Amino acid sequence: MEAMKGRDLLSLADLTPDEVQGLLDLAGQMKAGKVAPHCPKVLGLLFYKASTRTRVSFSVAMYQLGGQVLDLNPNVTQVGRGEPLEDTARVLDRYLDIMAIRTFEQQDLETFAHHAQIPVINALSDLEHPCQILADLLTVQETFGTLAGLTLTYLGDGNNVAHSLLLGCALVGMNVRVATPPEYKPLPAIVEQAKAIAEGRSEVTVTHDPETAVKAAQVLYTDVWASMGQEADAASRIPIFQPYQVNEPLLSLADPKAIVLHCLPAHRGEEITDGVMEGEQSKIWDQAENRLHAQKALLASLLGAGA
Amino acid sequence: MEAMKGRDLLSLADLTPDEVQGLLDLAGQMKAGKVAPHCPKVLGLLFYKASTRTRVSFSVAMYQLGGQVLDLNPNVTQVGRGEPLEDTARVLDRYLDIMAIRTFEQQDLETFAHHAQIPVINALSDLEHPCQILADLLTVQETFGTLAGLTLTYLGDGNNVAHSLLLGCALVGMNVRVATPPEYKPLPAIVEQAKAIAEGRSEVTVTHDPETAVKAAQVLYTDVWASMGQEADAASRIPIFQPYQVNEPLLSLADPKAIVLHCLPAHRGEEITDGVMEGEQSKIWDQAENRLHAQKALLASLLGAGA
Amino acid sequence: MEAMKGRDLLSLADLTPDEVQGLLDLAGQMKAGKVAPHCPKVLGLLFYKASTRTRVSFSVAMYQLGGQVLDLNPNVTQVGRGEPLEDTARVLDRYLDIMAIRTFEQQDLETFAHHAQIPVINALSDLEHPCQILADLLTVQETFGTLAGLTLTYLGDGNNVAHSLLLGCALVGMNVRVATPPEYKPLPAIVEQAKAIAEGRSEVTVTHDPETAVKAAQVLYTDVWASMGQEADAASRIPIFQPYQVNEPLLSLADPKAIVLHCLPAHRGEEITDGVMEGEQSKIWDQAENRLHAQKALLASLLGAGA
Repeated sequence: MEAMKGRDLLSLADLTPDEVQGLLDLAGQMKAGKVAPHCPKVLGLLFYKASTRTRVSFSVAMYQLGGQVLDLNPNVTQVGRGEPLEDTARVLDRYLDIMAIRTFEQQDLETFAHHAQIPVINALSDLEHPCQILADLLTVQETFGTLAGLTLTYLGDGNNVAHSLLLGCALVGMNVRVATPPEYKPLPAIVEQAKAIAEGRSEVTVTHDPETAVKAAQVLYTDVWASMGQEADAASRIPIFQPYQVNEPLLSLADPKAIVLHCLPAHRGEEITDGVMEGEQSKIWDQAENRLHAQKALLASLLGAGA
Repeated sequence: MEAMKGRDLLSLADLTPDEVQGLLDLAGQMKAGKVAPHCPKVLGLLFYKASTRTRVSFSVAMYQLGGQVLDLNPNVTQVGRGEPLEDTARVLDRYLDIMAIRTFEQQDLETFAHHAQIPVINALSDLEHPCQILADLLTVQETFGTLAGLTLTYLGDGNNVAHSLLLGCALVGMNVRVATPPEYKPLPAIVEQAKAIAEGRSEVTVTHDPETAVKAAQVLYTDVWASMGQEADAASRIPIFQPYQVNEPLLSLADPKAIVLHCLPAHRGEEITDGVMEGEQSKIWDQAENRLHAQKALLASLLGAGA
Repeated sequence: MEAMKGRDLLSLADLTPDEVQGLLDLAGQMKAGKVAPHCPKVLGLLFYKASTRTRVSFSVAMYQLGGQVLDLNPNVTQVGRGEPLEDTARVLDRYLDIMAIRTFEQQDLETFAHHAQIPVINALSDLEHPCQILADLLTVQETFGTLAGLTLTYLGDGNNVAHSLLLGCALVGMNVRVATPPEYKPLPAIVEQAKAIAEGRSEVTVTHDPETAVKAAQVLYTDVWASMGQEADAASRIPIFQPYQVNEPLLSLADPKAIVLHCLPAHRGEEITDGVMEGEQSKIWDQAENRLHAQKALLASLLGAGA
């Protein structure tokens, strides 16, 4: 992954198909204990939204690489006191080796990356969640031994996770179907981008019909119906999203070997039933663990220690 | 301490007498620089209550073992956003090597430990404070060269520290007397448990008479009269607890070689006088330091690096 | 720098001229990669005010030395619960190897240092900002190859930065001119102290005339007009400080080779124009980076690892 050294990952589409596959293979080797690069560098975390999995998995990944992590909580830094993000980026660039940023606006990521030479990783924005999807694809590859030709169906809100799944599945040659209520579709620009990437290799489908969407799929995927910042809407969304719930009847329409994924936290009884979440087809806890391995491979590659 | 590898420490009574003694001896050897196990693992701290000594002593202990620490402040993680503790435990179990949790409800500790395979340490709950008592016993052993047969008198609120002292003294064969106002007694179930452990080896006494309680004791121990979460009560408690203040007249009734302990923070002029706290019989600052050594021995043992 | 081992740095005047020069030279060698002391110790950060540069530069410095950092955020420790600072200092002294404290009152630093044996560093107080000035002097030395005989002009508020510049320039034999509005002069006691240090070697000037002050100076320096805690005053201060703005006309009066410094964060259009900040004479970003190198030299020296 030498070619990734020094680059940013703001969108999953910043990577080529070979690079995605290379990251997944490296992550698998790291998980198996076959490679353990040593990388005594410092990762900065700048998170404007709450996080458990992302903070912890990035931190432990860096520690296992022999590095350090600095949590730049906006509440206790000048970042929260109105210093322009451009200036903060230029200064942090002089101290740190790599940054992971969780923000509302994708534009903040672009601004930071433009003013800093060090690699900048999108650790979730309102537009995308590329690190989550690397972990998801690793989980699918572990289960089925391959990716190309499989079908993943995402049900629920056409949010950042849906966007990165569209791009990520297209990149690895998986068919991707996104089923959402009509008023919660993914952004047309992302759908077009995914179709352009997938062209000639796999199918990209956006629909409002959950039953057709899951038919014969190997992977069912869902996320909370109201993401961070949308909690006020949560109650009114429930009846709208109810038909997209991942439950036993819907799962029975998928491939009998299908697995179920969820990026967590989950609201049991809303987007997923407790039975499905705890059932045999759920790979949700392995998927959570794979955040660690996928991000460790990503950090090592961007820091030039992946070989 | 190989037998402790992988276990939880939710109550001091989770340990056998031999295990307590083994931990104290290991802590003493670490303090003397005679053993220095290397343990490059990651400790997670999940603290729902404020903490100085516990956070710092656990962190430095882990750093000195060659490990790392991840502070999972509930304010900045999903733990504070209503994710069920069961799910958080299952995910953190995939990333971290060991956890220390400070919580109000003992039940939260039980829930977390039940859903996580990694060792879980009670870093203070409303019921117990086992790590504090390991440091206390180390301090007593350093002073007197032995533990069995000595008498420790605790004066004040029958709280978590009192509970763990009852169990801890019983485990090491010390006599333990707890003197509290009638309405602030330790929990009867804990007292019974301590008596069962001590049976045939030492005495467990609960009383409301401070003067009788301290007579000929080798260790006087007190804690704040209003713990975290009880600050609103503080003023009304003062006259009730006044007779249990550790002051010069009370200290003069104890063994002339008696030492005074306090788990800090202290409210001088309330539960302890400034004169006693700064006097020659006070071992309070050594006791604070021993948090580091006792917890380092505990971490190393639970992680299987204690040998 | 063996002679600095174990000492505190509460004021820049705690150092001798040789020690300041020794620190700058060590910092330069570290920056050039010529020396890399290994110092696996633990630094505690106790910051009562927001901070980006100071927290990050101290943390990365310690990590690059092979050490660890513990952030003692007053919001999550007993320090915020009314424990006397004396007691906190005595306990932390038992766990940590060195402390950096950012506080309002210089007295808090003195109190902490008095009760702790470990080195205590002033990481900014209302009175002084010595670590900033070490980075500033390193930047000047990098640019001009020498320090003695150069002239530095500070324009704006007679604050902690002005105070430490007065002392620091005097210590290294630079002429220092401080130009402030009449009601915002530096403390007379600090000015007298700087004059005593400089006597016979360089000039110390306090004035209200910005144009005379910058004439032929090699370094122009400014800071925000309203520091942390003074934000309510910010608007009313603007017309008072306007004549002290570092802008193109003022810069044209200085030495043609003059450099411009600012300790950040900057308010473009207030104390400095965007053009000067981004212009060829600005060394502001190198200056920010030098916080890392200067503090690394300081930490290594105080910990006895500087040789």
